[in-house]
Amino acid sequence: MPVISVPSFLADLMEPIEGAEVVTWDMREAPPRDDLELVVVPQFNAPRVKRLDELGSLRGVITLTAGYEHVTPHLPPGVPLANAVGVHDSATSEMALTLMLAAQRDIPASVRAQDAGHWGKQQVTRSLADSRVLIVGYGGIGRALAARLLACEAAVTAVASQARDGDEYVDRVHPVDDLSVLLPDCDIIVLAVPLLPSTRGLLSAPQLRLLPDDALVVNVGRGALVDTDALQAQCASGRLRAALDVTDPEPLPEGHPLWSTPGVLITPHRGGSSTAFPPRGAAYAAEQIRTLVRSGHIDHVVATGQER
Amino acid sequence: MPVISVPSFLADLMEPIEGAEVVTWDMREAPPRDDLELVVVPQFNAPRVKRLDELGSLRGVITLTAGYEHVTPHLPPGVPLANAVGVHDSATSEMALTLMLAAQRDIPASVRAQDAGHWGKQQVTRSLADSRVLIVGYGGIGRALAARLLACEAAVTAVASQARDGDEYVDRVHPVDDLSVLLPDCDIIVLAVPLLPSTRGLLSAPQLRLLPDDALVVNVGRGALVDTDALQAQCASGRLRAALDVTDPEPLPEGHPLWSTPGVLITPHRGGSSTAFPPRGAAYAAEQIRTLVRSGHIDHVVATGQER
Repeated sequence: MPVISVPSFLADLMEPIEGAEVVTWDMREAPPRDDLELVVVPQFNAPRVKRLDELGSLRGVITLTAGYEHVTPHLPPGVPLANAVGVHDSATSEMALTLMLAAQRDIPASVRAQDAGHWGKQQVTRSLADSRVLIVGYGGIGRALAARLLACEAAVTAVASQARDGDEYVDRVHPVDDLSVLLPDCDIIVLAVPLLPSTRGLLSAPQLRLLPDDALVVNVGRGALVDTDALQAQCASGRLRAALDVTDPEPLPEGHPLWSTPGVLITPHRGGSSTAFPPRGAAYAAEQIRTLVRSGHIDHVVATGQER
Repeated sequence: MPVISVPSFLADLMEPIEGAEVVTWDMREAPPRDDLELVVVPQFNAPRVKRLDELGSLRGVITLTAGYEHVTPHLPPGVPLANAVGVHDSATSEMALTLMLAAQRDIPASVRAQDAGHWGKQQVTRSLADSRVLIVGYGGIGRALAARLLACEAAVTAVASQARDGDEYVDRVHPVDDLSVLLPDCDIIVLAVPLLPSTRGLLSAPQLRLLPDDALVVNVGRGALVDTDALQAQCASGRLRAALDVTDPEPLPEGHPLWSTPGVLITPHRGGSSTAFPPRGAAYAAEQIRTLVRSGHIDHVVATGQER
């Protein structure tokens, strides 16, 4: 029976799995067993990730983050690694929706009026309904966001690296090469792509100028997807608005002009950090463990340990 | 051909309607014609509503608000009045969703950190996903909210004045008499009912005590649906949280303790005032005009002018 370690916060949420022995390991101390076959790595504070190669019986490693660069160097040769698939879609798409709604319905102005102790002006705010939203990055987060936006009566256009057929939410997925053509016709653009050499600076100063007046730029990907100085300048002039869960640099340093730029809402990289994560992390780990028991391998493999 | 008046902001959004002559009247000046058969009353600033009985050919009046108490006294005898049906569902349900998400993901804390110019703590926030939401008032706004919440992976329970069968969103609609039984099992309660003698103080101090610790009270109906003092006290102690688009009294006066109570977010009755309203108002007016042309009467009649 394979022995599998999971972080303690997941173990508390998991039912026993037939054919597997699940033990708890937060990777801050020595491994609880030397016959671990599968290790689920905690998302934070796992100093022992560097000692994975001490585990001679290892047949797989799973991260609870989408990113896995921190684990790859420590994978024993031939051991496959799977990243977290779908685990953060709910929390991150929810954060994108929260940023959009807070910006459209002007929650920051209400918070400031409240702190000043006076009833704000009853003004007409922008609605998310009827807004044309361009989702750049149409993976799990993008699709979860599309579902939410359609329920909110927004019009959704999806963009991914390559053109492809649509799904239950969109007729088709546009290629990122068409971005310049799509920008003038959107009221809200959301960035939900990983930071790669090909996506760094995706929203450059010229691209930002293609957005219509008063458009809202939402970023739940990585700060460096956008030319921050250009975005700051166009918000400062009142032409664009922004709602950013990620910034470049991050954390945004004290005194940075973005802090006080009108029309900019900043949240401190809250993305996937919500109560939606643990149950989805546990469900994903359980699914992978059942796959291992049934087939002897894990799914969603994105890297394999190299000879060193 | 019947002559119909609509406010100018609607006229700009309406296509010509076959069989009807549509003229513009904001009801601030004398009627543009004395043969008006149908009048669509603007939502604000319509002093001439008091002169409706000067129109001898009137066959119907339509308000763009859900409430119509301000028009009824001025209806000529026998003239039917219809209120706005469905017109504000999108904007008001969106406001309820905005309040929920802003409170759950702690947007007020981010706004305050931003104003102080420092990166907030990256903390785990409450998700709307997996939350158990009790919608009190299951009319158009409640149903529009249910659609949004289900897309956000929340669990929805609906309450209306009487028990009835469910719809595409909920298995059944619970009667308000069961409220005490439902309160202990919800994480978020949303009030979306009109203020009537039967709903005043619906959420009393004892009812509020039935909510679980950390529950969020959202109000987009009317402030007096809730015992404000009791809600303020339970938020001040950290037991409950609140996100309120309406208050009692309203506007909330300077110096009221609710302004500075921790865990309370206040917006100044933004509800239906969004860009989602004009196109939906125009569509509703056009639908009523087509009904009048076709059948000689209007739909959704809620009152008829009385002999005086």
